[in-house]
Amino acid sequence: MWGERVPDVTTHPALRWAVDTAALDYEMAEHPRLKELAVVQDPDSGQPMSRYFKIPRTSEDLLKRHELILEGTRLGQATIPFIKDIGTDLIHALLIVTKKMKDPVYHQRVLAYREHVKSHDLALAGAWTDVKGDRSLSPRKQSNPDAYVRVVERRKEGIVVRGAKAHTTAAPYVDELIVVPTRNMREEDQDYALAFAVPVATKGVKLIVKQAPEVRARLDAREHNLDFPLPAPRLHLETLTIFDDVLVPWDRVFLCGEYPFAGPLAYACATFHRFTAVSYKPPLGELLAGAAQLIAEANGVHQASHIREKITQIVTYTETIKALGRAAAHDCQIIEEIAVPHPVITNMAKYYFASNYHQVVKAVQDIAGGLVVTAPSFKDFQNPATRELVEKYLGGRADISTEQRMRLFQLVRHLTASDESGVLEVLAVHAEGSIEAQKMMIYAEAPLEQYKAFARAVAGI
Amino acid sequence: MWGERVPDVTTHPALRWAVDTAALDYEMAEHPRLKELAVVQDPDSGQPMSRYFKIPRTSEDLLKRHELILEGTRLGQATIPFIKDIGTDLIHALLIVTKKMKDPVYHQRVLAYREHVKSHDLALAGAWTDVKGDRSLSPRKQSNPDAYVRVVERRKEGIVVRGAKAHTTAAPYVDELIVVPTRNMREEDQDYALAFAVPVATKGVKLIVKQAPEVRARLDAREHNLDFPLPAPRLHLETLTIFDDVLVPWDRVFLCGEYPFAGPLAYACATFHRFTAVSYKPPLGELLAGAAQLIAEANGVHQASHIREKITQIVTYTETIKALGRAAAHDCQIIEEIAVPHPVITNMAKYYFASNYHQVVKAVQDIAGGLVVTAPSFKDFQNPATRELVEKYLGGRADISTEQRMRLFQLVRHLTASDESGVLEVLAVHAEGSIEAQKMMIYAEAPLEQYKAFARAVAGI
Amino acid sequence: MWGERVPDVTTHPALRWAVDTAALDYEMAEHPRLKELAVVQDPDSGQPMSRYFKIPRTSEDLLKRHELILEGTRLGQATIPFIKDIGTDLIHALLIVTKKMKDPVYHQRVLAYREHVKSHDLALAGAWTDVKGDRSLSPRKQSNPDAYVRVVERRKEGIVVRGAKAHTTAAPYVDELIVVPTRNMREEDQDYALAFAVPVATKGVKLIVKQAPEVRARLDAREHNLDFPLPAPRLHLETLTIFDDVLVPWDRVFLCGEYPFAGPLAYACATFHRFTAVSYKPPLGELLAGAAQLIAEANGVHQASHIREKITQIVTYTETIKALGRAAAHDCQIIEEIAVPHPVITNMAKYYFASNYHQVVKAVQDIAGGLVVTAPSFKDFQNPATRELVEKYLGGRADISTEQRMRLFQLVRHLTASDESGVLEVLAVHAEGSIEAQKMMIYAEAPLEQYKAFARAVAGI
Amino acid sequence: MWGERVPDVTTHPALRWAVDTAALDYEMAEHPRLKELAVVQDPDSGQPMSRYFKIPRTSEDLLKRHELILEGTRLGQATIPFIKDIGTDLIHALLIVTKKMKDPVYHQRVLAYREHVKSHDLALAGAWTDVKGDRSLSPRKQSNPDAYVRVVERRKEGIVVRGAKAHTTAAPYVDELIVVPTRNMREEDQDYALAFAVPVATKGVKLIVKQAPEVRARLDAREHNLDFPLPAPRLHLETLTIFDDVLVPWDRVFLCGEYPFAGPLAYACATFHRFTAVSYKPPLGELLAGAAQLIAEANGVHQASHIREKITQIVTYTETIKALGRAAAHDCQIIEEIAVPHPVITNMAKYYFASNYHQVVKAVQDIAGGLVVTAPSFKDFQNPATRELVEKYLGGRADISTEQRMRLFQLVRHLTASDESGVLEVLAVHAEGSIEAQKMMIYAEAPLEQYKAFARAVAGI
Repeated sequence: MWGERVPDVTTHPALRWAVDTAALDYEMAEHPRLKELAVVQDPDSGQPMSRYFKIPRTSEDLLKRHELILEGTRLGQATIPFIKDIGTDLIHALLIVTKKMKDPVYHQRVLAYREHVKSHDLALAGAWTDVKGDRSLSPRKQSNPDAYVRVVERRKEGIVVRGAKAHTTAAPYVDELIVVPTRNMREEDQDYALAFAVPVATKGVKLIVKQAPEVRARLDAREHNLDFPLPAPRLHLETLTIFDDVLVPWDRVFLCGEYPFAGPLAYACATFHRFTAVSYKPPLGELLAGAAQLIAEANGVHQASHIREKITQIVTYTETIKALGRAAAHDCQIIEEIAVPHPVITNMAKYYFASNYHQVVKAVQDIAGGLVVTAPSFKDFQNPATRELVEKYLGGRADISTEQRMRLFQLVRHLTASDESGVLEVLAVHAEGSIEAQKMMIYAEAPLEQYKAFARAVAGI
Repeated sequence: MWGERVPDVTTHPALRWAVDTAALDYEMAEHPRLKELAVVQDPDSGQPMSRYFKIPRTSEDLLKRHELILEGTRLGQATIPFIKDIGTDLIHALLIVTKKMKDPVYHQRVLAYREHVKSHDLALAGAWTDVKGDRSLSPRKQSNPDAYVRVVERRKEGIVVRGAKAHTTAAPYVDELIVVPTRNMREEDQDYALAFAVPVATKGVKLIVKQAPEVRARLDAREHNLDFPLPAPRLHLETLTIFDDVLVPWDRVFLCGEYPFAGPLAYACATFHRFTAVSYKPPLGELLAGAAQLIAEANGVHQASHIREKITQIVTYTETIKALGRAAAHDCQIIEEIAVPHPVITNMAKYYFASNYHQVVKAVQDIAGGLVVTAPSFKDFQNPATRELVEKYLGGRADISTEQRMRLFQLVRHLTASDESGVLEVLAVHAEGSIEAQKMMIYAEAPLEQYKAFARAVAGI
Repeated sequence: MWGERVPDVTTHPALRWAVDTAALDYEMAEHPRLKELAVVQDPDSGQPMSRYFKIPRTSEDLLKRHELILEGTRLGQATIPFIKDIGTDLIHALLIVTKKMKDPVYHQRVLAYREHVKSHDLALAGAWTDVKGDRSLSPRKQSNPDAYVRVVERRKEGIVVRGAKAHTTAAPYVDELIVVPTRNMREEDQDYALAFAVPVATKGVKLIVKQAPEVRARLDAREHNLDFPLPAPRLHLETLTIFDDVLVPWDRVFLCGEYPFAGPLAYACATFHRFTAVSYKPPLGELLAGAAQLIAEANGVHQASHIREKITQIVTYTETIKALGRAAAHDCQIIEEIAVPHPVITNMAKYYFASNYHQVVKAVQDIAGGLVVTAPSFKDFQNPATRELVEKYLGGRADISTEQRMRLFQLVRHLTASDESGVLEVLAVHAEGSIEAQKMMIYAEAPLEQYKAFARAVAGI
Repeated sequence: MWGERVPDVTTHPALRWAVDTAALDYEMAEHPRLKELAVVQDPDSGQPMSRYFKIPRTSEDLLKRHELILEGTRLGQATIPFIKDIGTDLIHALLIVTKKMKDPVYHQRVLAYREHVKSHDLALAGAWTDVKGDRSLSPRKQSNPDAYVRVVERRKEGIVVRGAKAHTTAAPYVDELIVVPTRNMREEDQDYALAFAVPVATKGVKLIVKQAPEVRARLDAREHNLDFPLPAPRLHLETLTIFDDVLVPWDRVFLCGEYPFAGPLAYACATFHRFTAVSYKPPLGELLAGAAQLIAEANGVHQASHIREKITQIVTYTETIKALGRAAAHDCQIIEEIAVPHPVITNMAKYYFASNYHQVVKAVQDIAGGLVVTAPSFKDFQNPATRELVEKYLGGRADISTEQRMRLFQLVRHLTASDESGVLEVLAVHAEGSIEAQKMMIYAEAPLEQYKAFARAVAGI
């Protein structure tokens, strides 16, 4: 990270914040209000286990999972703890797809792997999106044959894999990496039809943490008292995850060459993980709505018609995602005895989130006013030479203190006009698959034949 | 209608189509596939009754009601049969609001009235929106004191009411009119805080059917063979419903002067009826999606990227309404033992429908092409002098006949570029309350305090 | 038309309205306020000629042409007189493209043809869009070889052409048809690379007028007194224009086989004609804005914040088109000594018009209210039995008469919720090329290389 | 700044960048290609002067001013040099408004002041937006009487002013501050109807520079080699500008108590300065378009249909602003012999820019992909232990180097997902007046009466 090897992620100035955010997942299990949600009894062993490991069998299971993620994310101040959701999303997808294969060996391996991570309550990351090189070319056609992760050797004790996955969230501070294909594969690409899991601490696995200017900015703000003091930041860090000829033992290989299953696996992973996405996104909307309403009140404009209009827009955005997320659970499909969130609704929810996010950011910025980016800093608020002037001239409504108003500007800046918020915008568009990917799945899953039959009947043809 | 008194609505050239559409409600009770949905056992009498009369007690009841409306509307080729939904919406709202009043007399009257219409399986219309005169003025301030329906006299045998309600759907061909206030009322407006029911065939009730050029256009097209022949049109007709000093017996008076309840009643009616709205709107989306896909195929453009994008947009529109409608049922609130659709979700669903409808119309027009409005008519297709030329030059993809393609143009024109479609656009915006009305209810019901608490915690204030 | 041969277009109940609309072009030449704009001195002959025939040499010429169309369209109550604009657009495009050819013969023919129509002040239509058959196939690949107009024989006296053009506006009531290709052509399609002109009254030219339900609706409304009486309707009619082996003399052939020039010609025609489009569209926006403001006042809601917001939206829409149209003239390109409207700006203006029109319609409908489609008719207003009630209950603001308000509802219905308005919506999307066509031209003409150089410099590459 | 007094703005690590950016204005006067644009002959003195000081008398003058700002901003890598535009915007507005006053004294002072700053080629900032306190209250009603800048004493030698202006761009590194009112004033607010100018270095003028995390982030990136090395950053800094009982000599007082002129002055300033805004905004669009196209090429996706669609969207955005800006100049109004950009077109252009900016940002992020925020840093690119892996796995299209691609990700991050880009978003919404302010001016200036007359004529009323 930042050009240097990190000796200990738990003490690194930046990574430790991410570690603390991830740790919220374990805290939930002890949290008075949330532990009932976070911990369930394992039907196999009778032991308590994280609810994330519960295989969803019903709508109710999916709704509880939704709520689990929602509450965890609220606990994380709109940042998801993350270390169980994608992992179990991929496991559930693997369970379904391997069940469809004639040979039961992959399915049994996935079951055994699940038992392992569940009984040890391990933290999991998903390495999914290949770096892809020239995106107009399929894996085999690339000038760099390792642009997609592939098997380069099959040995007795396992397979040797090479390649890299982009933006793997939380990889440096989880126990396990689960690797799945990013797309469908053709016969010529069979070496790229690959799924497996390895401990992060495996020889040949190399992680380069992203540039993370948003983290440096926060470090700087804390060190120099630029921001009003707040609790520890919540955040995650992504890595470029490199498999530099990594040996994966056979019992952790879940797909290796069976190319017709690569597409269905990518697809099933996408459905589960987009359901996760629409479960962890609403708290950000709630926070934006709350911040917008508070700053409107502090500015004395909350009664203005156009402000109420914009608040309504933010509320509608937030609650629509939530309602669609729940609807996807209610209307789940049972496949191989597993409850799969409704694929069209799940993708619509994610699409709605992704395609309207920037308009919500604009609404919040619009409501809050230009002082979001031009207000003096906390240092100027502390400096006796300027404090009085700042107190006097940055005051808004008489019954709200200048400090409160400045803290609100700070919050709005953080949420909508910072390195951090830039990351949020890009994630809105790209995390859990791009906007185009959601459109493709909606189109692919749409009941067009049923619509056409209806239209034919009405047209008399 | 059209300046003349109608002696018999069942034989009038236009009204009879509306009568036939309404009759679908009764047909559903005999329909092999739908009767199970349409008819339930009355828990009181043990007799079969229309499911519309079932008071919703659970999410499941609301989901079934949603499905009932959805299927009825599909049967009506995207037109709702209509004659039970609004009536029972208003009854359910009246049951809740009258229950909150100290004096149980109104509640008992509503229960008795419900028993009456249920046991006779009567057809019901709701007269709701006052004509309102100058909309910047409250009822009492109007230069026309009858701009809102009001009580002008209280007699021993009942009350005398005067005023008019705008756009009452189906009034000429139902049994009963249920009248509720259109808005909240202040003390000075107490004479306007009024709810009651009368048979349509009551002295002083006068109905003027709307202009309905869309019906004349259809009559003309059928008479002159301008359109390819199709089954009987499905449609409804609205009226200006005038209460010209109508005597309403006391047992049919449900609110008379208790002004603090006018607003809650209007509000409860809106919630129930907007849930109806989002239940009957999706089939129109399904039909538009089907028509768009079929015409794209007939034109040979269905594989084009921008066409698939637009199809996806229409599908997303349709399925989002459906998913939100179901979500409103799943997340219902139980008030006075009645399941009320979630008010925020219901209004968001209606708002989503209303605010995106025109974009969907545009997408369908865009996909279909200019021939939607410039294609020759069925007469030119029949005329031997021109038929061969039309056959030759209006053909699209080789495996789809010219007649099929022309029928599809006719369908798209009907749905998006006709008098009828103009009505659909206006209804999208205004029926069941305007777009602004939905925004107001979302804002009023939004959990802003909860959002604010979250934002305060994160801002450290 | 309507399945029958029309003996005389000037007396036909529908076509005569279109004839009268077209005649406005000749009336402008006598109009006290407009004749200076409409008539200029021919620099060749010194005689007065229609300004449409003036070859644009400067921005100022294009601005005057813009103003001419704008004023003509206002005279036509938002309908363009039409019979000179497209014709001269095509002539100007032909002048440019034929000038680029080695052999001057085509250019000389175009000059001669222009002299002919100019000196006789002839009315012109443009037959442009081929019927296209299966749109995924190029002309030669079609199962119907006549899906694009083509030359089937080259004779000494001229060429024989076969095929059909869709939606040719005004064809039945002009003197001349000018025919140009609809797209670029490859070598194999050279028989389709064809431009020529014929008098409408040429053997083998067959016109089938479109279905035109909007015209029947108007005839019906007038005949039965359903609408408040108004002056003669303004409208145009499109035809399916069939060339059933039509002999075109050589001196009227402007392109025949020189396939590399088909694309540039289509492109040049598009630029000129989209400039015409953005010149004739603004009056519709002006009319919508005026109608919306008047009905808001009549309803008493014009001071409401959301109403002003929507009025502002309609104004912005209208004035943006106008400003972009003028900007396209100001920033014209001089090609072959002819001033060509700036292609990017022209297409942006047309795109802006087309892609936002439906939102404007929605805004007007939203402002006006549901009575637009549910108000009683003029007949009910005349009928003594109902007039008093209608007068009383459809009154709005006290100082505006009920009749005025009803006339405004009628106007809004006509403009936004009628067969006519449906046609307007489809035309917004498709006339002068579809939305996708404008995007393609913007992309093709965009200064991407210049942008890229800028970005490279800033990125340090 | 940052809680500390700045001894020298030209050497301060952050302010010096802003100083360098401002200095581009003076560099233009020596720039081989641009000097002809930047410098004109003063018609009074015959001496060369900055073109900014040229009072616009014609469209051509405004077009040149537009071009001057455009080219200056391109020179500043999409950042405007800034130090002459707003100053002369305010001077031109003052010239017009003071000319309308009976007493010529203010006008003469403005003329004299203009001569002073012109002949010394001084750098100017505008202090315009009051801090406003509780925005629901007018100046006099505020609990803090100094929430708007006001005169607190009138002395023989001048007036004493107190209050603060928010976000004054470039104040710390210009010579002069020009102060104008932010809104219309009523009689009771006459002490707030105030315009004047002072040197920045005046006793009692106190500047607190904004927090500027975006500057710290850049300092950090440069110091630690996190970003690929680039030329000096271009940026500006805003201040909270406090007038702590500042004495303003009478010859620099331009309005003091004449409250009816406060609104017109604010309005005139807005028109001129929004024209400046739409002149300096397009280069940012050009840069975004170039960056988007380059990264699409580097990713190998530039031929994808949806990518071209998004590129077209960015181009259309950029060129529409430019075209409207030029149109506002072409259609200027001559008021008091000064050419004023067309107020409706100017505000539409600014509104178009402001209301669509976030969608453009989204498009660029969408095109570029998630690596924008997850790519490793320049340090990882330099570190020999990781460089090879980064080179290998972050390569895109074969003919574009990994470094080039990473530089493009860096550029896109900077432009769309950084502290800097957050500021750009907020400025898009708020700089030169909020979106609502533009809507208000469009509505106020719209030719509604003309539209209404048209609609009345068509409706027959």
